[in-house]
Amino acid sequence: MKKIEEYYSLINNQLDKINLPVNPPNLYEPIRYVLSLGGKRIRPVLALLANQMFDNNIDQAINPAIGLEIFHNFTLLHDDIMDKAVMRRNKETVHVKWNENVAILSGDTMMILAYQFISRTNEKYLKEILNLFNKTSLEVCEGQQYDMNFETNVNVSEAEYIEMIRLKTSVLIAASLKIGAITGNANTEDAENIYNYGINIGLGFQLQDDLLDTYGDENVFGKKIGNDIVTNKKTFLLISALKKAKGKDYDGLIELLENKTRPDNEKIEKVINLYNKLEIKNLVKEKIEYYFNIAKLFFNKIKKDNGNKLLLENYINNLANRNF
Amino acid sequence: MKKIEEYYSLINNQLDKINLPVNPPNLYEPIRYVLSLGGKRIRPVLALLANQMFDNNIDQAINPAIGLEIFHNFTLLHDDIMDKAVMRRNKETVHVKWNENVAILSGDTMMILAYQFISRTNEKYLKEILNLFNKTSLEVCEGQQYDMNFETNVNVSEAEYIEMIRLKTSVLIAASLKIGAITGNANTEDAENIYNYGINIGLGFQLQDDLLDTYGDENVFGKKIGNDIVTNKKTFLLISALKKAKGKDYDGLIELLENKTRPDNEKIEKVINLYNKLEIKNLVKEKIEYYFNIAKLFFNKIKKDNGNKLLLENYINNLANRNF
Repeated sequence: MKKIEEYYSLINNQLDKINLPVNPPNLYEPIRYVLSLGGKRIRPVLALLANQMFDNNIDQAINPAIGLEIFHNFTLLHDDIMDKAVMRRNKETVHVKWNENVAILSGDTMMILAYQFISRTNEKYLKEILNLFNKTSLEVCEGQQYDMNFETNVNVSEAEYIEMIRLKTSVLIAASLKIGAITGNANTEDAENIYNYGINIGLGFQLQDDLLDTYGDENVFGKKIGNDIVTNKKTFLLISALKKAKGKDYDGLIELLENKTRPDNEKIEKVINLYNKLEIKNLVKEKIEYYFNIAKLFFNKIKKDNGNKLLLENYINNLANRNF
Repeated sequence: MKKIEEYYSLINNQLDKINLPVNPPNLYEPIRYVLSLGGKRIRPVLALLANQMFDNNIDQAINPAIGLEIFHNFTLLHDDIMDKAVMRRNKETVHVKWNENVAILSGDTMMILAYQFISRTNEKYLKEILNLFNKTSLEVCEGQQYDMNFETNVNVSEAEYIEMIRLKTSVLIAASLKIGAITGNANTEDAENIYNYGINIGLGFQLQDDLLDTYGDENVFGKKIGNDIVTNKKTFLLISALKKAKGKDYDGLIELLENKTRPDNEKIEKVINLYNKLEIKNLVKEKIEYYFNIAKLFFNKIKKDNGNKLLLENYINNLANRNF
């Protein structure tokens, strides 16, 4: 396959074909609902692209790829309960549309479904992929716990933040690429290089998300700008500003974080003014560049190319240059 | 091994040996807490006993056995959130001792840990055991959803109730036995017979639990009698009584269920009086006997006995005759 749209369609077709039981309806309907909300299907697309970079046996990658997408959607479902999020992809979240118990149990069921697809991997690759998937899933849970802990911690360091997003976001991207590579019979070294490539593009993507939430174009970004500022979310921007601001600027920032009566748009404006003064935007852009450059080093080390290396690179670059 | 205590100790030793990460503390401490609360470890004991019934390779059964115990404890953790239970094994539940978010995420992590142990099964048995474990886990979630749905449904039939407890309780007991048998190289027929044996003893055990909650000896049972009556839980006793009661008895029972002002002990006494009049106790005892008899038929069909068949039978009989 030579176009990303073909990979994307293949994944959506496979997801549509999943034959979930009908009963009990309030267990399986939320799962159908979540899986039908769409999304970019980045993780399974990466798994298939990585597979095709090394071999021509995409059928070996499709089941674990679907498992990765279901797992990712399970994490969103449970995270939304924990974050009390009411909307996801412009639709009501499951715990709002149904209730919290239904959301907990449907999420549990989705995790088992993810394992069911992972388990359908050819026995030749099964043990290695299971081990990687188990390790990665644990790390994603650790990342979510750190993220929640940061909410009530004013002293989060840059290193702690990077480690949190590595766990919460990067490892699943990296594992998707490596799982694709394993099913494509990549050698150990290439599989390790594509994993490290994934870690670093994952970090870059997340920092970009942080940047877009404050500096994105609302019309292109598709959601309101400044939500992270309103909720005092410990993003790379805020952590950098807290570190860089001195004297009056620091006191002003703390006041902005602690004052609960100021209107949202006024708070957003004032925080952005301070970010501008401290040149936070450039600082984050440099950091993103830094991780994308490391990623490139790992990518260039990969020896085998069955013909799809450029397609994967273009796909990643497209995601990296998005301003949505 | 010739004594149940040896199996029990082996399992607790293995559980103690699990080397969980330290960080983040509020992710892993609740897991250590839950696993240290004890319990009868019925599922892993059954897996080891079944293994030893067919072969002498207990080391092949120990990892999936531990996986089964961790999975069971994960279901208790998440069920306790959904049921708003404040105590488990005489200790605070995780969502009370920490909070609900911690309980959701620690539970998710426990499910992954369960899969990690299942994944350590010898490749010879891995695919078969994974398939059975995935199917069983889904069924347990379905059972929990039916159980919750029954809370707000007055018209639960006996058949629906039995199907619910088959899913919520029996399939994991049956899978534990079958997983032990698979690792013990049992043939397909014997593995199927021990599975069906497990289904029927599971049903018997659950009906016995229902009976003990109303008719047990508080000193031996270890908890207060009548909790199911107070909470209008749709047990086999209540479902049978609703079916059997006519005229004034039926109206009286409905009034007992709907009246929210009557003191608990008065409600318990009145419901038990009605159960006695309707001879519900005997009816449940007959049903328990019925399932234990079917179980026996399947057990007797099992051809291979490596010497441990009697030990397993005695263990089950002990559990069946308990009045705690």
